[in-house]
Amino acid sequence: MEVKEFYKAGKRIAQAKILGLKAGRKIIVINEEEAKEMDIYAGQRVGIKIRDEEFVAIVDVSSSIVKKGEVGIFEDYAEEIGVKEGDFVEVFLIPTPMSIEAIRKKIFGVELSNEEVFSIISDLMENKLSEPEIAAFIVSSQIRGLSDKEVVSLIQAMVSTGDKIEIGKHPVVDKHCIGGVAGNRTTMILVPIVAAAGLYIPKTSSRAITSPAGTADTMEVLADVEFSAQELKEIVLKTRGAIVWGGSVNIAPADDHMIRIRRSLNLDPRGLLLSSILAKKLAVSSEYVIIDIPVGRGAKIEETALAKDLGKYFKTIGSMIGMNVGVVLTDGSSPIGFGIGPGLEARDVIRVLRNSKDLPLDLKKKGVMLAGKLLEMSGKVSKGDGFDVALHILESGKAWKKMQEIIEAQGGNPDVKEEDLPLGEHVFELKAVKEGKIEHIDNKAISKVARASGAPKDKGSGIELFKTKGDRVKKGEVILKIYSESSSKLTYAIKALETFQPIKMEKILIEEML
Amino acid sequence: MEVKEFYKAGKRIAQAKILGLKAGRKIIVINEEEAKEMDIYAGQRVGIKIRDEEFVAIVDVSSSIVKKGEVGIFEDYAEEIGVKEGDFVEVFLIPTPMSIEAIRKKIFGVELSNEEVFSIISDLMENKLSEPEIAAFIVSSQIRGLSDKEVVSLIQAMVSTGDKIEIGKHPVVDKHCIGGVAGNRTTMILVPIVAAAGLYIPKTSSRAITSPAGTADTMEVLADVEFSAQELKEIVLKTRGAIVWGGSVNIAPADDHMIRIRRSLNLDPRGLLLSSILAKKLAVSSEYVIIDIPVGRGAKIEETALAKDLGKYFKTIGSMIGMNVGVVLTDGSSPIGFGIGPGLEARDVIRVLRNSKDLPLDLKKKGVMLAGKLLEMSGKVSKGDGFDVALHILESGKAWKKMQEIIEAQGGNPDVKEEDLPLGEHVFELKAVKEGKIEHIDNKAISKVARASGAPKDKGSGIELFKTKGDRVKKGEVILKIYSESSSKLTYAIKALETFQPIKMEKILIEEML
Repeated sequence: MEVKEFYKAGKRIAQAKILGLKAGRKIIVINEEEAKEMDIYAGQRVGIKIRDEEFVAIVDVSSSIVKKGEVGIFEDYAEEIGVKEGDFVEVFLIPTPMSIEAIRKKIFGVELSNEEVFSIISDLMENKLSEPEIAAFIVSSQIRGLSDKEVVSLIQAMVSTGDKIEIGKHPVVDKHCIGGVAGNRTTMILVPIVAAAGLYIPKTSSRAITSPAGTADTMEVLADVEFSAQELKEIVLKTRGAIVWGGSVNIAPADDHMIRIRRSLNLDPRGLLLSSILAKKLAVSSEYVIIDIPVGRGAKIEETALAKDLGKYFKTIGSMIGMNVGVVLTDGSSPIGFGIGPGLEARDVIRVLRNSKDLPLDLKKKGVMLAGKLLEMSGKVSKGDGFDVALHILESGKAWKKMQEIIEAQGGNPDVKEEDLPLGEHVFELKAVKEGKIEHIDNKAISKVARASGAPKDKGSGIELFKTKGDRVKKGEVILKIYSESSSKLTYAIKALETFQPIKMEKILIEEML
Repeated sequence: MEVKEFYKAGKRIAQAKILGLKAGRKIIVINEEEAKEMDIYAGQRVGIKIRDEEFVAIVDVSSSIVKKGEVGIFEDYAEEIGVKEGDFVEVFLIPTPMSIEAIRKKIFGVELSNEEVFSIISDLMENKLSEPEIAAFIVSSQIRGLSDKEVVSLIQAMVSTGDKIEIGKHPVVDKHCIGGVAGNRTTMILVPIVAAAGLYIPKTSSRAITSPAGTADTMEVLADVEFSAQELKEIVLKTRGAIVWGGSVNIAPADDHMIRIRRSLNLDPRGLLLSSILAKKLAVSSEYVIIDIPVGRGAKIEETALAKDLGKYFKTIGSMIGMNVGVVLTDGSSPIGFGIGPGLEARDVIRVLRNSKDLPLDLKKKGVMLAGKLLEMSGKVSKGDGFDVALHILESGKAWKKMQEIIEAQGGNPDVKEEDLPLGEHVFELKAVKEGKIEHIDNKAISKVARASGAPKDKGSGIELFKTKGDRVKKGEVILKIYSESSSKLTYAIKALETFQPIKMEKILIEEML
């Protein structure tokens, strides 16, 4: 404490100047001369205090934009902490956060105590850790691994540093997919089925980061998806089901602070992945959770043994936190459904829910299967009857009716029709130059093409698949169609098609078709 | 290559607007709307091209400071890459750098090839790696270790990405200290001695980062220290010796790009430490290098066994790159000399070189010993005679004469006197409240106090020690004196003295004395 007090001697009171800049990080700007006087360097972490609330920020310095006695605050950060132009802000030196010592322990292979894990997650949430320090935690978690005990501590820390929902009704169920399969919008089939069956499902979904659509992006075509935790609870109490964006609810948000770094390093330490997923489920009081692990060529997990290991791991940690976790290994070697991109995927979902004759059968089957598992796990129906009950709910129209209620509760139009959905007007058809058979449709490659066409930002952009793996194709037949909201993005998408070669047909290359 | 071309489709030409902001990182600012169109997010790495030169920068976004068609450039970065207001700059998306894959390999425990090591160092130098990615490399090097082969590759890569000097004369010698001992300015004793003996020594030294003075800071009291590699060479050809700041010469500068991150994590992977030190020696064509490893309580290395290991490691890698490396383990348990802080340390050095009667004997002995070792290693004098020859050069006044030549060559006043040196006018004396014996003077703690007094920024601030370990002290005797250029910093330093307790005297605490 004495050390902290001593450092606080080097503090300054300054008037806030809001700068029209956003960095996606928490940046303040100090006058260069003043920074030298305080022995602060550009890039350093300092404390700031505004109306008795303390925060941690990173320093840029300026000799012109910010005068002595002023402190510049980036626009996004000022909004986040509620600072207005002219407010008095105290800037002070701060000691190294406690969690750095915990991260160093992890680097040196020591198992962390519950308290140490909490210090990391709470310092992360309070912005006390710099990006390199967060990277150090992720990398050391990857190399040293995390013990089950550490993962449970992480889950509890992540839950406690975000909003929580207590639905107060039972059973509350949930679903998560490891991802990596294009067009895989089973959540939007499953949620209305299980909600119609009487289960509660406060589903939070992600937006796309590198893919052409996340469930939240697709749901957004039909309804609003940005709600607070309290609003999510109210919707679920009314309709039993909801599909909202996880980023808006602030539920177990610690992982959101790590995602950019995990992505740039392409690192997904198993213990971190698991704790993040299960924390989000625990925070909404889910009791029964089904995990979909797609396996196969081009999927995130290509080997069954690895998928089985991961499944066991989910069940082990689930039981340690009192959660009943079921795991399903599914075929992840091809896209699911016809559409890839928010608008086209929403069309698939509506066709399935409304029992149109041209519905994508694979999406329907998978959605019904997962819903059936949840019905069985929760004890709502007997083991073995889940699929049939779920199928009946879907085909009887009850699922669509429930989806209409959910759409309405989330501020959308419940009478939405296929024709209302966005669809890019610039199109390109890929046709077969000779007869052949589709050997493989690569999820990663097709996603890059859909993304180049403008998805997920342009809701009407994306790809419609007319053929699937194993199909025979005649000369001149259309294999896929690209939709784009702009002609230049259509051009990029065609180039991407050529570069990434998502469709493999017995030795017929796309170049020959273009 | 096709992939790169495809991504380049998303490029923009924009006019530079120099912003009065410094971040210590390479930041450009893109208009928010335009960033969305390009699918660029705040924090992303993009390519920029100016007059056919390409660089990599990090993006901030703004909806007000930067208009569409403009690209804001932080002041320090604009200067670095030579962009002026109104210049046309191309901004484009870039693929993930190759070195990320190499870093991932290191994370997963794979030994890196020469090419992979080079890709990391060259991408680091070209700013293609983000701070979290650099952290990932440092952390994985710490946990997985680096093989001797990898360390040699690192040395070669570090040498090749900076300036080099070929003195063209022999023998070229050099010296490095692992650091951590306050007041330890042996370089400034050793350089003039060995140069006077006919050896060539193009010594690059560091400025203090967290300590109260680096050799470059202390030398700067007497002469300029910022020179280019070419200027360093010219000085050495004239005087045989030089003491310049390593940061200005751009010699093996890769490590400078990692230092902030290594510091914030307090991580010093042995292989990285070694490669950085030896690369700087190899780049100036040093043939004989003496490494000083201080060991003891409060030093960087506290155990002799560890110091011996590190010494062997230096010799092994040295021989792999054809460098003759000698290692000396020295007592690192107390400060060396009387002064701590640039001005006070310069005074110690002048007293030793001018053979004043009140010179610090420990500094003299250590400087002479190290110089003697170099004389022996280089074959200039027979084994066993080094100390005596070095002592003679010092005591005969030849070393001071040589130092005067070096000071003059580096733009300083060769006739500098003790009275010319800066000395803070605000002082505080710590006196013994009762008789006792000095048990320990802690290097880390005393450095913090000296730093609080204003060193190294304020050249005249620092600490003068009147007593050393083992000394008996009478009641009322002065143990140390703090000098500061400002009264407020003197106050901080006194508080720091109380907090960090650098002097241990048989149970007499500093509180009792204040």
